[in-house]
Amino acid sequence: KKDKIWDLVSLHDSVSVILFNTDRQVLVLVRQFRPAVYYNSVPEEGRQASGHVDTSKYPGCSGITLELCAGIVDKKVSLEEMAQLEALEECGYDVPLKNFDHVKTFRSGVGVSGDRQTMFYAEVTDKMKVTEGGGLEAEGELIEVVEMGLQEVKELMAKPEITAPVGLLFALTWFLQHKAPSNTTTTAT
Amino acid sequence: KKDKIWDLVSLHDSVSVILFNTDRQVLVLVRQFRPAVYYNSVPEEGRQASGHVDTSKYPGCSGITLELCAGIVDKKVSLEEMAQLEALEECGYDVPLKNFDHVKTFRSGVGVSGDRQTMFYAEVTDKMKVTEGGGLEAEGELIEVVEMGLQEVKELMAKPEITAPVGLLFALTWFLQHKAPSNTTTTAT
Repeated sequence: KKDKIWDLVSLHDSVSVILFNTDRQVLVLVRQFRPAVYYNSVPEEGRQASGHVDTSKYPGCSGITLELCAGIVDKKVSLEEMAQLEALEECGYDVPLKNFDHVKTFRSGVGVSGDRQTMFYAEVTDKMKVTEGGGLEAEGELIEVVEMGLQEVKELMAKPEITAPVGLLFALTWFLQHKAPSNTTTTAT
Repeated sequence: KKDKIWDLVSLHDSVSVILFNTDRQVLVLVRQFRPAVYYNSVPEEGRQASGHVDTSKYPGCSGITLELCAGIVDKKVSLEEMAQLEALEECGYDVPLKNFDHVKTFRSGVGVSGDRQTMFYAEVTDKMKVTEGGGLEAEGELIEVVEMGLQEVKELMAKPEITAPVGLLFALTWFLQHKAPSNTTTTAT
């Protein structure tokens, strides 16, 4: 029997959270610089054989993505506890565990990596905001917390292209369908 | 000025297609074995240091995913033409180019890879079915074409976990919302 050999990347499973601030009716998302997205936005002629890129020619902002609060499961805690940790570290919200509702578990990738991601939904209030968030500097994270109103979410979803992972598209669609405050003009579309 | 160094995977951009057979009111999807998904489904104690896995203990079916018809852009053709090629190779449908409607362009990954994926929607008929599909053997593809009715799609979307990439979840949600034949009991939820 012949061995089958594949090249693949083994990644930790991950969690993500759709955070909705009910006090101000905004979704709490994160913007961050993603090296792989940046590199893929540079045309081939701008990539040197060594992998070097001239950042004066290709501005770093093309590598900035919009994402859900998320993180890899690198601790021996429950998925809800992991999501709770990320909400605090990245977005500065101290959210009770009972607020985390399971949305869906799926594969975040199927080609090179095949890791499992679990998505939660959690409603938060201004009272739970205890720090600025922004991620852990020690982990090299540079995260900007973004608040987005319902109208802005709908405008974003109407754009033909979005520098965001498809997981965010699923999350926003799910949110608009299941959780967004009812609005007769929306349900009519 | 210090160089910043990152490890990342550079992937080709890709296309995917939501294929809907209007004659029989079924979505046309693909099932395939994904080594990375399989490997990630094996608990750590089942993975040898060499990366070997005992396939008699961990059945290969845990690596089978449900996905949209899709492929990487490895030819100098338009994205629509690439989607057309994949619909033929994978699903056996010879679809006119004008049938491909753009749904959304996004990043299929943001962590390790940052490649762009463009999703299309195309309606097909039984007349367009010219081969069995199944992918190109020369490219090592082993693809099963799956037809799924609307009720089955809704049941799938109701499951808490799904061995599918999140792109499929977005696609199915988008389809149910924008294209599924109207059904008053559905729009009321």
